[in-house]
Amino acid sequence: MDTLQILRKVRDGEMSVAEAEDYFRRKPFEDLGFACLDSHRKIRSGAAEVVFCQGKADEHLLAIFSSILESEGEVLGTRASQQQAELIQRRFPQTVYDPVSRILSIEKNGKLHRGLVCVCTAGTSDIPVAEEAAKTAEFLGNRVTRIFDVGVSGLHRLLARVPEIQKANCVVAVAGMEGALASVIGGLVYKPVIAVPTSVGYGASLHGLSALLTMLNSCSNGIATVNIDNGFGAGYLASQINLSICEGDHSEQ
Amino acid sequence: MDTLQILRKVRDGEMSVAEAEDYFRRKPFEDLGFACLDSHRKIRSGAAEVVFCQGKADEHLLAIFSSILESEGEVLGTRASQQQAELIQRRFPQTVYDPVSRILSIEKNGKLHRGLVCVCTAGTSDIPVAEEAAKTAEFLGNRVTRIFDVGVSGLHRLLARVPEIQKANCVVAVAGMEGALASVIGGLVYKPVIAVPTSVGYGASLHGLSALLTMLNSCSNGIATVNIDNGFGAGYLASQINLSICEGDHSEQ
Amino acid sequence: MDTLQILRKVRDGEMSVAEAEDYFRRKPFEDLGFACLDSHRKIRSGAAEVVFCQGKADEHLLAIFSSILESEGEVLGTRASQQQAELIQRRFPQTVYDPVSRILSIEKNGKLHRGLVCVCTAGTSDIPVAEEAAKTAEFLGNRVTRIFDVGVSGLHRLLARVPEIQKANCVVAVAGMEGALASVIGGLVYKPVIAVPTSVGYGASLHGLSALLTMLNSCSNGIATVNIDNGFGAGYLASQINLSICEGDHSEQ
Amino acid sequence: MDTLQILRKVRDGEMSVAEAEDYFRRKPFEDLGFACLDSHRKIRSGAAEVVFCQGKADEHLLAIFSSILESEGEVLGTRASQQQAELIQRRFPQTVYDPVSRILSIEKNGKLHRGLVCVCTAGTSDIPVAEEAAKTAEFLGNRVTRIFDVGVSGLHRLLARVPEIQKANCVVAVAGMEGALASVIGGLVYKPVIAVPTSVGYGASLHGLSALLTMLNSCSNGIATVNIDNGFGAGYLASQINLSICEGDHSEQ
Amino acid sequence: MDTLQILRKVRDGEMSVAEAEDYFRRKPFEDLGFACLDSHRKIRSGAAEVVFCQGKADEHLLAIFSSILESEGEVLGTRASQQQAELIQRRFPQTVYDPVSRILSIEKNGKLHRGLVCVCTAGTSDIPVAEEAAKTAEFLGNRVTRIFDVGVSGLHRLLARVPEIQKANCVVAVAGMEGALASVIGGLVYKPVIAVPTSVGYGASLHGLSALLTMLNSCSNGIATVNIDNGFGAGYLASQINLSICEGDHSEQ
Amino acid sequence: MDTLQILRKVRDGEMSVAEAEDYFRRKPFEDLGFACLDSHRKIRSGAAEVVFCQGKADEHLLAIFSSILESEGEVLGTRASQQQAELIQRRFPQTVYDPVSRILSIEKNGKLHRGLVCVCTAGTSDIPVAEEAAKTAEFLGNRVTRIFDVGVSGLHRLLARVPEIQKANCVVAVAGMEGALASVIGGLVYKPVIAVPTSVGYGASLHGLSALLTMLNSCSNGIATVNIDNGFGAGYLASQINLSICEGDHSEQ
Amino acid sequence: MDTLQILRKVRDGEMSVAEAEDYFRRKPFEDLGFACLDSHRKIRSGAAEVVFCQGKADEHLLAIFSSILESEGEVLGTRASQQQAELIQRRFPQTVYDPVSRILSIEKNGKLHRGLVCVCTAGTSDIPVAEEAAKTAEFLGNRVTRIFDVGVSGLHRLLARVPEIQKANCVVAVAGMEGALASVIGGLVYKPVIAVPTSVGYGASLHGLSALLTMLNSCSNGIATVNIDNGFGAGYLASQINLSICEGDHSEQ
Amino acid sequence: MDTLQILRKVRDGEMSVAEAEDYFRRKPFEDLGFACLDSHRKIRSGAAEVVFCQGKADEHLLAIFSSILESEGEVLGTRASQQQAELIQRRFPQTVYDPVSRILSIEKNGKLHRGLVCVCTAGTSDIPVAEEAAKTAEFLGNRVTRIFDVGVSGLHRLLARVPEIQKANCVVAVAGMEGALASVIGGLVYKPVIAVPTSVGYGASLHGLSALLTMLNSCSNGIATVNIDNGFGAGYLASQINLSICEGDHSEQ
Repeated sequence: MDTLQILRKVRDGEMSVAEAEDYFRRKPFEDLGFACLDSHRKIRSGAAEVVFCQGKADEHLLAIFSSILESEGEVLGTRASQQQAELIQRRFPQTVYDPVSRILSIEKNGKLHRGLVCVCTAGTSDIPVAEEAAKTAEFLGNRVTRIFDVGVSGLHRLLARVPEIQKANCVVAVAGMEGALASVIGGLVYKPVIAVPTSVGYGASLHGLSALLTMLNSCSNGIATVNIDNGFGAGYLASQINLSICEGDHSEQ
Repeated sequence: MDTLQILRKVRDGEMSVAEAEDYFRRKPFEDLGFACLDSHRKIRSGAAEVVFCQGKADEHLLAIFSSILESEGEVLGTRASQQQAELIQRRFPQTVYDPVSRILSIEKNGKLHRGLVCVCTAGTSDIPVAEEAAKTAEFLGNRVTRIFDVGVSGLHRLLARVPEIQKANCVVAVAGMEGALASVIGGLVYKPVIAVPTSVGYGASLHGLSALLTMLNSCSNGIATVNIDNGFGAGYLASQINLSICEGDHSEQ
Repeated sequence: MDTLQILRKVRDGEMSVAEAEDYFRRKPFEDLGFACLDSHRKIRSGAAEVVFCQGKADEHLLAIFSSILESEGEVLGTRASQQQAELIQRRFPQTVYDPVSRILSIEKNGKLHRGLVCVCTAGTSDIPVAEEAAKTAEFLGNRVTRIFDVGVSGLHRLLARVPEIQKANCVVAVAGMEGALASVIGGLVYKPVIAVPTSVGYGASLHGLSALLTMLNSCSNGIATVNIDNGFGAGYLASQINLSICEGDHSEQ
Repeated sequence: MDTLQILRKVRDGEMSVAEAEDYFRRKPFEDLGFACLDSHRKIRSGAAEVVFCQGKADEHLLAIFSSILESEGEVLGTRASQQQAELIQRRFPQTVYDPVSRILSIEKNGKLHRGLVCVCTAGTSDIPVAEEAAKTAEFLGNRVTRIFDVGVSGLHRLLARVPEIQKANCVVAVAGMEGALASVIGGLVYKPVIAVPTSVGYGASLHGLSALLTMLNSCSNGIATVNIDNGFGAGYLASQINLSICEGDHSEQ
Repeated sequence: MDTLQILRKVRDGEMSVAEAEDYFRRKPFEDLGFACLDSHRKIRSGAAEVVFCQGKADEHLLAIFSSILESEGEVLGTRASQQQAELIQRRFPQTVYDPVSRILSIEKNGKLHRGLVCVCTAGTSDIPVAEEAAKTAEFLGNRVTRIFDVGVSGLHRLLARVPEIQKANCVVAVAGMEGALASVIGGLVYKPVIAVPTSVGYGASLHGLSALLTMLNSCSNGIATVNIDNGFGAGYLASQINLSICEGDHSEQ
Repeated sequence: MDTLQILRKVRDGEMSVAEAEDYFRRKPFEDLGFACLDSHRKIRSGAAEVVFCQGKADEHLLAIFSSILESEGEVLGTRASQQQAELIQRRFPQTVYDPVSRILSIEKNGKLHRGLVCVCTAGTSDIPVAEEAAKTAEFLGNRVTRIFDVGVSGLHRLLARVPEIQKANCVVAVAGMEGALASVIGGLVYKPVIAVPTSVGYGASLHGLSALLTMLNSCSNGIATVNIDNGFGAGYLASQINLSICEGDHSEQ
Repeated sequence: MDTLQILRKVRDGEMSVAEAEDYFRRKPFEDLGFACLDSHRKIRSGAAEVVFCQGKADEHLLAIFSSILESEGEVLGTRASQQQAELIQRRFPQTVYDPVSRILSIEKNGKLHRGLVCVCTAGTSDIPVAEEAAKTAEFLGNRVTRIFDVGVSGLHRLLARVPEIQKANCVVAVAGMEGALASVIGGLVYKPVIAVPTSVGYGASLHGLSALLTMLNSCSNGIATVNIDNGFGAGYLASQINLSICEGDHSEQ
Repeated sequence: MDTLQILRKVRDGEMSVAEAEDYFRRKPFEDLGFACLDSHRKIRSGAAEVVFCQGKADEHLLAIFSSILESEGEVLGTRASQQQAELIQRRFPQTVYDPVSRILSIEKNGKLHRGLVCVCTAGTSDIPVAEEAAKTAEFLGNRVTRIFDVGVSGLHRLLARVPEIQKANCVVAVAGMEGALASVIGGLVYKPVIAVPTSVGYGASLHGLSALLTMLNSCSNGIATVNIDNGFGAGYLASQINLSICEGDHSEQ
């Protein structure tokens, strides 16, 4: 129902002025494309409601957590400290906390996990960032394979896992130090690769800048990069890609 | 047919030693996962065969161009100079050259363009990089919308185009100077966004590093970044994502 | 006249559906604050229509120039080459070109110049950037004083000009190399100072980064900084400040 | 009364040598422009007397605080620790301390707040820096609106507040991570924008350098930038601009 | 014995299908060159099994340590904390811990140390990194001379030791601050020099980046550089070079 | 004659008002310490009048050159191009131009050269910068020794020249690439060393930044550094030090 | 013959004072270890006499070339331009010039090439730097294998060449862009790897800095890095290592 | 007595072989210029023996301190912690410790302080670095004036002290943040200026790098710079310059 129809109904007495006013109050946002977002609202809300816990005051964190839980029935928190986990768990004993990825979550039962995202790491020290990516993707409804410690310094470990990686709709490659993993995977596997540099390393690793530059300069195709240690960002984008593939193409409609 | 079966056939005289040898010569690559690549061979070759023309010697360029054209029936060259275009056109008069994107191509007739990739730019100076992305995606079989000059310094231009952007399966956001376009699109549209910083700007733009950092630090979700001015890389990855969506999920098979 | 009034008029037959539809079509932009911009439209357009000439194709430049000139009666172009100046002058012989600031302009006669902006430079090599600031401010209707070559290596030259600088509503301080001028002026004069680092210098001046850092770290109060060599940006902001002072406070209305 | 008049009076016996000597002892500073500062003395002193508390020894801090309080009747301290606040409060129980902005102040009663400065932030983590700007501007006699958490990742929140922002004489835009807020405000609102990058973020945010570069490269007009986390500097400059607007133009006198 | 021979034997009944299958299962790795590694297996394993202790969880560290000790009869740990040393020593009391180099080791008795590696430092603060290099090389079976505190600020100390340095097959030059030691040794001694920048210094030493750049830009010949503070990497490479020299040339076989 | 005396004379009719006014007009500068500069006027002017030719317009350069020549009887120009040299030589045929150092000069006959400055270089490519330092010092009245190509990659060349270097009152050490020369000289010679990094080198030399960092981090004592390629600055400072030594101590007067 | 023996001979009249004086004049150098260098003189001179042609004046280049040729019977020049090659060839027609590596050489006939150095590149654009390394090593008497275009974006090409690489005594890995080649080779091959970053790439490759950082941070063992584009340095060091291996261990003598 | 004379005496029986041997054992160092150092030995030792305490182990520190005290009768330690001061004071109760500059010293009575060094700071936070410079210069026998808190944000404070600064033989200018103090002093005073950047500041001060760049790019003449926070280095070099001036010129002897 568009503007013209509304106005005609008002003129013809088929719609009250109050009803029409309510319509026009919401209209600016809808006109500007926000309406199109609505069909994706559920998925979008789920993602938008992820809480970056680090640095939040206790009362603030509790309030946000409670509010999302009430409206969505589930909630995901990233970069939560042990102390923050205990705070939330005192109020919501069903909260699950993973100290490796520092992910805090209350999840609906029986959630469907679709498609496949593969999360790889170069070393064991990259696992916390990789788990942030993997758990984020799982929370958002993706099936996830983890393939850890397959860095290029022992290439046979990676080669042996290529068929498994190849099955995924989207690959997340997590690596610190020289960050070569993403390029090598990009050269072996024909799938979108999201590269996550980590701050693992010392000296000329420059807190992850070196791995970041490696990934940006990759001579393999089909690779894009997120911020250093941004496991959440990679998991979120991998979820978007994987779920879009599961849903199929609607662009021509 | 696996190793055991082959060996039994050789023992039983059902397969010649020469046939078996041929099998084992190819086997190492297949064992390591390369076999899985075969089903994607066509798509993969098309992409792998893109020629980065810049800095190539004339005879070298001609040889590569001829060889790909012969085996694939089409070929795409990026970063080609006017002089290189003329060289190729003298040999293959059907070659099309676009001086803006510096893309050189001979394309099969009647190619199907599927799905939708949307390429946006902040300013008019970002168009050459954007066209490299767009033409790459088109060559690889994607339908492409171009929405140029919608930078954040005049936000209403961008807002008016949101519904159009929202239709695409994947968005490429191209911007130099402060590079804020990707964040703003990421905040308005629930689709994967591939951010391409450009070297447009001066002074503290640091030849595109400033835009690159902006994009990596985006507080919007669903964004990943490629190298400065890497329109080809963005178009290629956008194609992977869009075509995967068109093909649908095969991960659980 | 607001939404409710319009709807009542439609209901009561005092306004046609077509008239109301037209109102609602423009409404989204007005609701979001764009309407408020309208009272400033003239000033704003003038500024928005400044053309960054560098890198623009000839036909593009001519088209933009003609279009602004027609609608506004005047036009300002920055970073124009000698060749671009000649192109424009062939079409619009009244165009004035200043090769130092690379500013190209056609200006209305009898323009009023109000208030006072003072543009200072440390050395003579900073003059091109300073002139870009000064001419921009003049075009936008500001009175401008120029005080050049008063860098800190000969402090008496600057001290002798302090009373003059103090008269301005806003000071633009342009300096390359070590960029100390802005701090020293900020310590002598109680007026907003817009610092413009220039790429003048060599070696550790890092193409203006060193001056930029100096200005950002100024221990004087009342200083903010624009991009390296961004004379236009400084002139534009100085104009906003100076003209606002001339117009006086309307915030409490 | 100038040099010539003084000398004539001495010659004519109308002024004693001692009186004239006193005049000439103060003269050097006046000649160099410091005299002009005098009419602004009150405002200037207030500002100059702001104490940067961080790193100051206890006895030093107490002495400065007491001295300014005695001469001015009020005092403002920035970047004060909880421990420093307690130290001052033991001596001056009327001291107010805000742990968010780390501002410590004793303020005169009934101070007039004039004009309007609007302080915006991208996220909630930027609030401490924003409050330093806001409280500084309030202490210096400005009326301040706060519009927090309107970052570009959810653009509708910002758009809804544009009319409010537009009312101010000067806008302070505080943002970390990618720092795009200043550009977007600069594109929506025709007012001077002072951009404050914050060190909020991680990885490639480079402790605020990324946001700083974004702001310096803004393609919107009317923006200048201060040092990372420099809320005080932004509040001070915003005060200069807003109060100058309230006072109106005196440059042509 | 190659593929053809195996297949002929199977055909002719001289080899069982099971034996042939086992051969082909290992073949992919051998074909790709891994077989050649086998002759070096002992040395290689020794080196590969060095444990980077820093940041490892206690149970993880113990498990790896035990496993290597069991299979190899010895084990080397780098960057071990005092607390980690105590953990390992409680389980394996024969463990030796050196708090300077933070090296933790259990070593076989009567190990042969061959050839000669010379480890030099510029200052006494560089000794921890140098000891990491020296102890690594010793563990891997190299004879090592230590020449410490011979930095270029007192050149006579270095000159007096040149004949000693000249005897080694490979020199490790460890230096922080300006890092000039490697260049000076490279100019005095005709031997491969592995330069190790250290993070010793302050200010413009940039945590070792300055020394790193010095070493990379050395105008002496025969120098290559490893990461900042990477004593282990230098000791490992020096061992490869020295032991290769002890074993002599086998490339032409 | 001080203020009191002047005023008494005016009162007593011993000095006219005009004479007194003239005195007070000059006084501010004298009071602030500029008077003390006067005794050094000759030396100071000579130095201050050095012309940085690079980028100066022809007419500007000629005017400055003529003006200094007229008032001082001699003039020094740095970074002059061949074309600028010809311009000046057409007007002043006695001008001497050195294409290596790009120094242009007209010098008084029979100038006394006092004390000793020693200018050393690491390589032959550093000679242009070294000659700028040496010729500047000679023009300013210093005796200069040149010791070129004594870099640390062949240390015996430097050691053989130590006694000569030791004779100077001040040493200028010019080096690109790794820049170790200054540290080594600083460790061998007990004299002030002015280090000049040059932009000689490639790759990680970062246009001289690497040599600059080396010099700033020198572990030798008695070294300070000037900007990259700033031969003039080093020659000027060396001249100040050497000539002060020649003149002896006047500080206690 | 040592000091004591000489002195006794002088005392006993067996040696003239002049002979003894001559001995003591040369002695300082010998005492300081230079004597030990003498046994390596031939090899050392050969290497030391390599001429870095870039930027050398014509007469200078000719003089150095002639002088080395006369004393050594052969000569190697790096980074020579076409114009320099022609200059040398006019005087010495037997000079060979390779425009790819820009190496200019006159080489003795029948030179023995010993051992094996393997030079690998990631792409074809890295070949000029690789050829500089290869030709340097060949000139210095090493046998060299070239394995080009085996970058990690198509890993099977590299894997197929591993056995060949493994045969060498020392590997030179040349790569630009992301520079991952060295790490991958270091993980596959147990030989010293000298990594050479190249300035091939664009944008965030930062003229080779990105590849340099990748190589320094390699998580593979046995890798050290030289300056960006420093093919000569890598070839020289590889030669030192390979020839030392051919000569065998003399350290314990 | 030179080589020839010694040899003649040996020949003539005027000197024993043992005496001559002793002479020649020491000779290498003397020949290479170390002999010339001897006349400066006292001064040189004093300086060379300054102990950089930071990071030294307790027993190490005590040993060095005792050894220098015994041989020199006095000793200076820099960057000593409170705990290190107490350690030394327990053994040598006469030790004086200044917690501001962290200087630890035992000094001879009645030391003569000659000439004049002036140490200036921009702010009060720069005092610790300035005191390190001042106390170092005093220990080395220089008279020192301190002029603190004269930064450019309140220029009149500096101007009022110019005559005092002008009296010194050498000026040390200590400043953090924007570091403009050195340039301004260099423009006001004709004396060598040693600039010391400090790490005072935040954000874009980059831990002192910004001030360092400012000082290196100074457009004033006669300035050289030492490492960030290197008060000792500046005090040492200022002492060399000042004491050389006090001693007068000996270069022509």
